[in-house]
Amino acid sequence: MTMTITAFESSPDRGRGLARDMRVRWALEEVGQPYNVRLVSFKTMKQPAHLALQPFGQIPTYEEGDLALFESGAILLHIAEHYPGLLPDDANARARAITWMFAAVSTMEPPIVDREIARFTEGDKPWYEEHLAMIDKRIRTRLDQLSARLGDADWLDGAFSAADIMMVHVLRRLESSGILPEYPKLSAYTERARERPAYKRAFEAQLAVFTAAPGG
Amino acid sequence: MTMTITAFESSPDRGRGLARDMRVRWALEEVGQPYNVRLVSFKTMKQPAHLALQPFGQIPTYEEGDLALFESGAILLHIAEHYPGLLPDDANARARAITWMFAAVSTMEPPIVDREIARFTEGDKPWYEEHLAMIDKRIRTRLDQLSARLGDADWLDGAFSAADIMMVHVLRRLESSGILPEYPKLSAYTERARERPAYKRAFEAQLAVFTAAPGG
Repeated sequence: MTMTITAFESSPDRGRGLARDMRVRWALEEVGQPYNVRLVSFKTMKQPAHLALQPFGQIPTYEEGDLALFESGAILLHIAEHYPGLLPDDANARARAITWMFAAVSTMEPPIVDREIARFTEGDKPWYEEHLAMIDKRIRTRLDQLSARLGDADWLDGAFSAADIMMVHVLRRLESSGILPEYPKLSAYTERARERPAYKRAFEAQLAVFTAAPGG
Repeated sequence: MTMTITAFESSPDRGRGLARDMRVRWALEEVGQPYNVRLVSFKTMKQPAHLALQPFGQIPTYEEGDLALFESGAILLHIAEHYPGLLPDDANARARAITWMFAAVSTMEPPIVDREIARFTEGDKPWYEEHLAMIDKRIRTRLDQLSARLGDADWLDGAFSAADIMMVHVLRRLESSGILPEYPKLSAYTERARERPAYKRAFEAQLAVFTAAPGG
């Protein structure tokens, strides 16, 4: 049964692959599973049919038969449990990879998203720059810690896993900030991930949506 | 083999059970497993031995033989996979419960933590009240959506699960804000959870740490 995911009809990132459907597309490409995409507008996302799937009015969602999921982390974990290649077989290594999936969305992503929220909602405030500097300090604290842990390893914990998909995508959201190049190990880590054929296929697929859209 | 978790030697919440070790204690009480607690100071948390366990210098951690985990969501998922009572047996219901575990830390918790960060780091700024109002608007949007989804149900998705532990604990961090009483369904949901014997045992255990501490 082919699964269906949702993605932005018109992504605010203009096809740069920063929306969270990219994580799901990438995971499905890694495991070699085809998928359908249902595009949703910002208006549609706030309507009852979509809210029944995603109570917070966001993308992505994941539908497979009578199963409906949301939250990119949970969707990736579901995919990883059903198809080989995204989580280690060893039980302890698997638990550690899941730890990093949570760390990506719960510890690393919040200050990075705060930076985006500040730009959109406080950009015209006289205190924007002062607040932005405080957010960037929080981001750098997390990047310092992540870079120290990653060290010279290729991936977060042994072999490439769903945790790396989550973490690399979170880090990519920093691209417009200019902060990531301060961290050569983390920059190399994201570049290494972007060289994966599955990443490239997923990226092209989401870019094609933007290119095909009116005004894209 | 008895697992060991870490918790604050001197919790900044003064024993109100808002630190994240409470989630792990509660889960272990739900499944009836004993556990050891190693208390750590703020200084210890930033030193190499703790950073080797928890690269971001936080609590809780979870050690069991040669397995070491961090992130409360990942720890609860690990416990739920090893002991019955925290996740449904049905595969689809289990995947949905995991979705809510991610939603708790990835969608609901960030604006709630932002409120705490603002109080600590911006409380002396002339723009604090204006920024706080913006954060509270984000929090209310999420509470509106969560309350609409919960409706009159007892728990997030069918039977009580690890997802409810995560979500209730996230909501409890709003207690000092005065916002939660605006949401009768969510208030009743957290009260319902706090009546559970396992919750009460976990709460007393963390309170005992604070009471026993110098100055507690």
